[in-house]
Amino acid sequence: MAVAGVDLGGTKIQTVVVVNGEVAGTDRTATPPKGPDDVLDAIAATVRSALEQSGQSELTAVGIGTPGEIDESAGAVSLAKNVPGFADRVELGPQIAKRLGGVEVRVDNDVSVATLGEVRRGAGRPFKDLLGVFVGTGVGGGVVLGGELRTGRGAAGEIGHTVVKHEGRTCTCGRRGCLEAYAGRASMEARARKLVDKGRTTVLFEVMKDKGRDRLTSGVFAAALDHGDEMAAELIEDAVWALGVGLASAQNLLDVEAIILGGGLGDRLGEPFLERVRSSMKPHLFVSDRAPTLLGTELRDLSGAVGAAVLAGG
Amino acid sequence: MAVAGVDLGGTKIQTVVVVNGEVAGTDRTATPPKGPDDVLDAIAATVRSALEQSGQSELTAVGIGTPGEIDESAGAVSLAKNVPGFADRVELGPQIAKRLGGVEVRVDNDVSVATLGEVRRGAGRPFKDLLGVFVGTGVGGGVVLGGELRTGRGAAGEIGHTVVKHEGRTCTCGRRGCLEAYAGRASMEARARKLVDKGRTTVLFEVMKDKGRDRLTSGVFAAALDHGDEMAAELIEDAVWALGVGLASAQNLLDVEAIILGGGLGDRLGEPFLERVRSSMKPHLFVSDRAPTLLGTELRDLSGAVGAAVLAGG
Repeated sequence: MAVAGVDLGGTKIQTVVVVNGEVAGTDRTATPPKGPDDVLDAIAATVRSALEQSGQSELTAVGIGTPGEIDESAGAVSLAKNVPGFADRVELGPQIAKRLGGVEVRVDNDVSVATLGEVRRGAGRPFKDLLGVFVGTGVGGGVVLGGELRTGRGAAGEIGHTVVKHEGRTCTCGRRGCLEAYAGRASMEARARKLVDKGRTTVLFEVMKDKGRDRLTSGVFAAALDHGDEMAAELIEDAVWALGVGLASAQNLLDVEAIILGGGLGDRLGEPFLERVRSSMKPHLFVSDRAPTLLGTELRDLSGAVGAAVLAGG
Repeated sequence: MAVAGVDLGGTKIQTVVVVNGEVAGTDRTATPPKGPDDVLDAIAATVRSALEQSGQSELTAVGIGTPGEIDESAGAVSLAKNVPGFADRVELGPQIAKRLGGVEVRVDNDVSVATLGEVRRGAGRPFKDLLGVFVGTGVGGGVVLGGELRTGRGAAGEIGHTVVKHEGRTCTCGRRGCLEAYAGRASMEARARKLVDKGRTTVLFEVMKDKGRDRLTSGVFAAALDHGDEMAAELIEDAVWALGVGLASAQNLLDVEAIILGGGLGDRLGEPFLERVRSSMKPHLFVSDRAPTLLGTELRDLSGAVGAAVLAGG
């Protein structure tokens, strides 16, 4: 039984095919800059390629994790502003089903499925109460209490829009002072461009070009840090600070056993980054001598895709 | 079957006796300024008085909601700094049992039991997912998801220690910028005293003396507002702002159906205050067109005591 899981992001599309609970094929591509048709075609192409790699010929189902607002029953998504062409409503499920010969497609929130991936197949397995936090183009979260993902009225987990600073930086959501305005890739890039406009220097955009990228990915940040780039260090410092405030406030409210910190930044910068976030949380924790276990993901950049496969029964 | 519920606070002790699910007797007294013995005696006296009023002769059990850290199995409490003599560990359950002829006593967190009171017997009855927020001497919360109070590892609900301002006012907990530093009675009073020391004028302390109080209670704030006192208005404005930020951040994370705002300030200032908090939350809500229902408590200043009785089976 082959089930595909797709993690649709503003930067990349990551797909897996799961057979008997194991990842048997993977494919990954940059998210096309024009959408929505190019993006839909690209998703279908990754599924075909991962299926081929898995050695299976037939798909049972496809799960897709996507940003934006989900209409679960219709398999549609709206307001996924980070994905080209997805600001308006896209009939994601039906469109992918059409491209893949009518297979069943289930669609859910990208961060919810990434949390599901880590809870069922990754670092979250030992815990009943945990928070999944994914630092990618934006910053999203998944709340798991009593072993169940808590979705509220469908929009829970938006830890990226915790207010960490009064009248702070403008967020991609248009509000001010959100965690995502400091720790989301898109906001960090906007901030870097603003600082360059103000006359500050950095190797960030050079490294970006050298790496053949058109965005400041977490890999670009990591390389710039290795170059001793001051601006990169400053932006990461701000992200660490904002994560400390936002995660500690969430911890004070929920008192979870563990926080799993994933997404590009968490995965790429690894344990030293986690250690800095632990220190940054500490001064704000109400029960400061019993911090939650702060862990990286186990599935790394496959959390979302594996979780999407789990969503579809894989 | 008569069950007593006690709400132990830094300002007052509120007790009810519940018979067949209905409040049949109540008593209330100012928390004695010296403790812990005076406080324990005062608790026992309110229980006796409420029992007498209820027309019952025998108590089945007593529930107590208290601030601080609870050792549930021992019925003990530590670090309840707002209650005189309760900064160190107090064997609250056994001590009250001893004073009341060996009756069974259950002890839990004051805000958890107040939330329980509103969920089972008050404004929370129609909702599955809700947040109870109580603005008293401090600011505490109770998280109810799927109809169950979520206590995490025992310390969940500390919404008062959401960081609402980077490097902001010093909180009673010693940290900076917490919601409680702006919206908790003790912090608001400390701030008022500081402003007076700086030469600002206010009728707050006059009103306090006129009312025979030794603290700036919510009643004192309400009266000062009626006098058009500028400092009182400013402090309430700050509290409204901080509640807007803190509640919106919690809402973005949990997407609950309702938030119940109780405690002295919420109960005393009523609907106009709630309306201001709604407006203050709005700019920070991620799903701004679907705000949670913000309600006052139904049991008003009895939420905690009734909830404590519920805890003990009443």
